[in-house]
Order: sequence, then structure tokens, then C-alpha cells
Amino acid sequence: MAHNLPRIVSTTDLPTSEARWITLKKIKYLDEDGKERLWEYAERKTRAKAAGVDGVAVLAVIRSKTNAFPVSTIVIEQYRPPIGKYIIELPAGLIDEGETVETAAIRELREETGFKADKILQLSPITVSDPGMTNANMQLAIVSVVLEDKMEMPEPKLEAGEHIITRVVELNMLQGTLDDYDKKGFVVDARLSHFAAGFILAQQL
Amino acid sequence: MAHNLPRIVSTTDLPTSEARWITLKKIKYLDEDGKERLWEYAERKTRAKAAGVDGVAVLAVIRSKTNAFPVSTIVIEQYRPPIGKYIIELPAGLIDEGETVETAAIRELREETGFKADKILQLSPITVSDPGMTNANMQLAIVSVVLEDKMEMPEPKLEAGEHIITRVVELNMLQGTLDDYDKKGFVVDARLSHFAAGFILAQQL
Repeated sequence: MAHNLPRIVSTTDLPTSEARWITLKKIKYLDEDGKERLWEYAERKTRAKAAGVDGVAVLAVIRSKTNAFPVSTIVIEQYRPPIGKYIIELPAGLIDEGETVETAAIRELREETGFKADKILQLSPITVSDPGMTNANMQLAIVSVVLEDKMEMPEPKLEAGEHIITRVVELNMLQGTLDDYDKKGFVVDARLSHFAAGFILAQQL
Repeated sequence: MAHNLPRIVSTTDLPTSEARWITLKKIKYLDEDGKERLWEYAERKTRAKAAGVDGVAVLAVIRSKTNAFPVSTIVIEQYRPPIGKYIIELPAGLIDEGETVETAAIRELREETGFKADKILQLSPITVSDPGMTNANMQLAIVSVVLEDKMEMPEPKLEAGEHIITRVVELNMLQGTLDDYDKKGFVVDARLSHFAAGFILAQQL
């Protein structure tokens, strides 16, 4: 039965009291004018307390020791029920309790794509994904992956029921590749899309 | 009473039935193996039906006709109750019913910062901000702002109760500026952070 297209059976209102993974909150706050205001937002219930951050995304910079291919990165294709489509994202995952963000970045890249990072080149501060709507936060780890020679796709270590497709993309072709995905009915993650837009703009200026 | 620091008075659980702006949903779906699974997510109640997109963010490329300053962009500082801090973001807003995304981009830039875009350089496809947790979606508009000569900060057209501070940043200094904000206790939006990371990486490769 593997490799069917996922299909949504039903979408129903979820009472906050029955939700396991996320919840709704109401904030009462005083604004800059001292006026009392209300704000509604959604919150994950899973944030690891020690790390203080929900998740980490991984931008891999893949090079060949023999320059057998241009500097590349990895994107993944993954079905996301809230959108009902396959989304193109950076490899990413939630931080486990007791785990550092750096360890989670290297672990998630390995599990989802099979690629082994040899070092973290840069770790962003804690950033917020959609701060008008949720308190969800994340860090971006830019990691180095060095291959001996030509590109060979390693075996990922997916859990049962995890269906993730790995795609290696030349960094110079990233924006074009994302546009092609969009035309084919995939949807691109906004953070990945912003990364690609920044990459292209720097080359154009 | 203006220019106090905002302060959270209380944060309480919000029953889905009482929420006005967002809601929780439960999806029942069949995965690639044909196995029935559940997923929880949050949804905005405000999406304009015609546009099919929640919001638009605006990356302004500001130039001077006399080259009086380096190519720059605009970020805003805005208090976000779900985070309880000031967030550094691109100018952005929700699409009004009956409005195009392009019109909303130019309108929001004008209202929030006072700057007038002369044209849209690029409009991203519809992208998703945090697709594991919400169906929230957005587009990024890269717009051109041309000033006659030196930088002069225009007057924004903020609504009563809107407190947005505009900051013009040289594009080459964007990542450093965001890091400085983080050190001072601000929090940077993940999409803006990814844009800056892409911009810097392109210059380093």
C-alpha cells in the first residue's frame, strides 16, 4: 500500500481542551498607550524546556573535495496535512528534551536525508516563524557537508510512517527550482523561499 | 501615556468556540501507506477569499538617484503579544477582501513606513510560514523605492493604536543589524532572518 498520495478524510473544529499538540491562548496586555488590549495566538505544547526553542532547520552547504559538483544544498518534499499538499522545506525537526540545538540539527539532517554534517558553520539566534499568530520559534543551522568526490545519495534513517524525499539542489539554481516546484503544485516553505530570495538578490546587486 | 513599554497582564487558555481570529482544527487523513492518521493545526479566520492568501511581506530595495547612500531595505520594530517582545520584521499585512496582493504590498509599505514603492520587482508564489503547525500562508513582494537624493524618512500613516518603528538598513549590513537587535533583546522574524542568511551566503561563496 506504500506510495499512495495522502488524502484528507475530514477536517473538524478541535476544542482546545481536546488538543494534544497545540493550544489556543488569549493574552490581555497593555499597549504603548497604556490601553488594555486582547490578542489570540496558537502555541505548541511540545517545546523542550532546556533549549527554549521549538525546532531547528538545516541549510546544508554541500561541497566535493574534488569539485565534482557545484556547491549545493538539500531540500525535502514532505506531505503537510494543514496544507493538504507536499511542501518543499529545509530539513528540520523539533528539539528533543535534553538535546542541544546543534545536536538536533545534525541528527535531523542525518535522519531525514542521510547526509552527515561535519560542522556547524553558523547558528542563527532564536527567531519566530509567524509572530502575529503563534509563539513558535526556531533556529537556522548552516552546516557543512563535505563529500569525497561525486554526489552520492545516502540512505536516510526515516521512522516508520515517515515519508520524506530528499533533493540536492545547486545553490545557484535554488530559486528556479523552487519556482518549478510551485508550478507543479508543490508549495514552498516561506523561510526557504526567503533564503532563496536573499541569495538571488545578493547576486543581482 | 504614549511610549510605555507594553506589558502582558494575563495569558489564559482560549476555548476554540470563543476565539474570534484563529481556530484549532483536527484533520483525519490517509498517509502514503494508506494508514489513517490525525493532525492538529491552527488556522486564521480572516483569509480573504479572492486572494486565497493571508498576508504579504515587503522587501523594499531603496536606491538614490544620486547614489547618495548604499542600496538599503526597511525593517520594522513592532511589539508582538504572542512573544511578549519587540519583533524585527519586514513590513507586512493581511490582504483585505477584494484587494490584490500587489496592491496590499504597496499599501502596507506606505501605511507602516511612509515609503512609496514605484514598482513590484518580484512577487513570490504563495508560501507557507510554518506548515507543520498552521495553514498560514503569505507572499513576499520585492519592491523598488527610488529616492531623488539622500535618505529622508517619510511619515507613516499608522492607525490609532499602531506603534511601528521604521528602520532603514543597508542591505550589506542586514545580517549584522539583525544580530545586534538579537543581542539587545529584540527577536527577529525567521523569514527575515532566512533572507539575510541567503544574502550573506551568496556573498561568501
